[in-house]
Amino acid sequence: MSGYNQKATSLTDAFNRAEYRLPGQGPRNVDVLKTVLEQVDGSTDSDMYGKGKIIDDFQNEMAAYLGKEAAVFFPSGTMAQQIALRIWCDGQNLKQVAYHPLCHLEIHEEDGLKELHGIKPILLADKNRLITLEDVTELQEDIACLLLELPQREIGGQLPEFTELEAISAYCREKGIKLHLDGARLYEILPYYQKTAAEICALFDSVYVSFYKTIGGVAGAILAGDTTFAEKSKVWKRRHGGDLISLYPYILSSEYYFKERIGKMEQYYRDAQALAERINQCHGVSTRPQVPVSNMFHVHFAAPKDKVESVLAEICEETGIGLTGNLRDFDAGTSYFEFSMGDMYAGVPKDRCEAMFRLLDKRLQEI
Amino acid sequence: MSGYNQKATSLTDAFNRAEYRLPGQGPRNVDVLKTVLEQVDGSTDSDMYGKGKIIDDFQNEMAAYLGKEAAVFFPSGTMAQQIALRIWCDGQNLKQVAYHPLCHLEIHEEDGLKELHGIKPILLADKNRLITLEDVTELQEDIACLLLELPQREIGGQLPEFTELEAISAYCREKGIKLHLDGARLYEILPYYQKTAAEICALFDSVYVSFYKTIGGVAGAILAGDTTFAEKSKVWKRRHGGDLISLYPYILSSEYYFKERIGKMEQYYRDAQALAERINQCHGVSTRPQVPVSNMFHVHFAAPKDKVESVLAEICEETGIGLTGNLRDFDAGTSYFEFSMGDMYAGVPKDRCEAMFRLLDKRLQEI
Repeated sequence: MSGYNQKATSLTDAFNRAEYRLPGQGPRNVDVLKTVLEQVDGSTDSDMYGKGKIIDDFQNEMAAYLGKEAAVFFPSGTMAQQIALRIWCDGQNLKQVAYHPLCHLEIHEEDGLKELHGIKPILLADKNRLITLEDVTELQEDIACLLLELPQREIGGQLPEFTELEAISAYCREKGIKLHLDGARLYEILPYYQKTAAEICALFDSVYVSFYKTIGGVAGAILAGDTTFAEKSKVWKRRHGGDLISLYPYILSSEYYFKERIGKMEQYYRDAQALAERINQCHGVSTRPQVPVSNMFHVHFAAPKDKVESVLAEICEETGIGLTGNLRDFDAGTSYFEFSMGDMYAGVPKDRCEAMFRLLDKRLQEI
Repeated sequence: MSGYNQKATSLTDAFNRAEYRLPGQGPRNVDVLKTVLEQVDGSTDSDMYGKGKIIDDFQNEMAAYLGKEAAVFFPSGTMAQQIALRIWCDGQNLKQVAYHPLCHLEIHEEDGLKELHGIKPILLADKNRLITLEDVTELQEDIACLLLELPQREIGGQLPEFTELEAISAYCREKGIKLHLDGARLYEILPYYQKTAAEICALFDSVYVSFYKTIGGVAGAILAGDTTFAEKSKVWKRRHGGDLISLYPYILSSEYYFKERIGKMEQYYRDAQALAERINQCHGVSTRPQVPVSNMFHVHFAAPKDKVESVLAEICEETGIGLTGNLRDFDAGTSYFEFSMGDMYAGVPKDRCEAMFRLLDKRLQEI
């Protein structure tokens, strides 16, 4: 095989083979779980159908962290959020909610909310911007619940000002509309708002957080709210088939990586800002938001996907540094990718990173 | 603390403290998963939202084992079976199915089938006996699907004769009724029928099997059928919130313990028969079925729960051998427990086991 220069067949392959990768928490492989279990006494009892020390302890920890009466561990956010909306709808006998057009429930869940729960969503705001107080106050139809996602992932992780959030929350309370937080990335916005998780969650009736995104766990979610809400959510968890005899592989990994990384959010945020600033200096590239408000942002190219993909794959192979493995089409003739800052970034030699950006800038000018 | 004789506060405590336990595969603790992961290369990639080598390989293995075109891994049987029934109902535009009154969907799932899918079940047969061909042919209402559970767990794991199964299957095909197998314990009935799993599954349009019962895995299920059915089930898996980014902790443990124990089913069956025979010699006790047809049976006492519980707890403490940790009320003034034969039984010294049964017989005569 000597002398055979293996050529990347695609951007994904090039990225996966890169010596360094800028985004994320490292490969999603079995070591992620093995590392956790090495710290756990093997004689520790499994949780059993939502009961037992492993699950109770973590639920209590997360309830305290989120400032809610109770928290319930779920295998997925998809399950947790549909259930939250169903509980609020049942409580008002009104099967209508509102959320952003690019809400996870609208674009990634095969219409589970409609097909399983018969709930009709009203899409608030244009898909390219955040929901505002005005969108909510001008809503003509009754809704049982408003779902807000912070940060709004599909538009680069944007955030409203905290005062606007407070105003939306106050309006919803006044009108008897339940407010649910899709806080899959809640931890990541605390440095921008300079608030605790509990301070943000206090504006919401229910909140979901995830453990496999920036936290980097195997899978799993927490749904938190008052005790009555939490107890109802357990009944629905069983109905959905999520009340597994053992959830400990997800619980233990969620707890481990939460403790490992919750203190790093400020660093990720600062690193994301620095990286976005460097990216914005390259030709025909801009980040969204221009100045990140969390650990994530989108990177937009003023050139079509196929051309940019070739450039990114080449640069990745030539410099050994991967920026992304997944470029997507955007509006006419443009393309973008999502960037999430994590532990990987700190390990990339800064001089090689700078050389990569200089090359990127040059190649993009040649497109 | 010297001289302090710690007294069991309940049968469960006594059972958990026993030197030996007759039923099951050992404690459900974290070692169950650690043992599996020690065999796995940590750099193995996670499955990703139902895709990747880990999940593909196991699905293909199980499809072949069950003799079906395709198999889909699910976090739970609750999710898999509701989805199977939903697919068959949608296919006939008829939201009605039939199953046994003690079907898992009827008694353990908080009415998920009704609340999430709007499917109405017709309860066939009396709750104390098996569904017969006659029950099916005499059904007055249209149904999209008939669910059969083999063995019928809640009545001690009873089985119809294979010829009756074949007749029910032929009748359903003739009438266009889909036949679904709740095969949570399918492996355990192969020695009695002297059939392969594929030979039994050939009678059914869809089949669910479990990996945390006799197989002893962490959690997880397979749903198998034709390719169209399998593809639809993946869409519903996502809707239910079961299409997790990573299911590998369950897949790897299912695969490991399936291989570890699938060859032991004949032994479990023989051991269950021998043990039931010994139990039936004790005063006021009888097993159901009298001669087990799988690795499981129920043990019925002609005395009320509180009295039998005391006897069982005492005997467990005095002999160091646990028969059960969970006694339940049955009909007026009687009680029972479920026994599942597994690896634990072989490790119990036979002379001590016999001494325990002599003591049990004596104490039951004194009730």
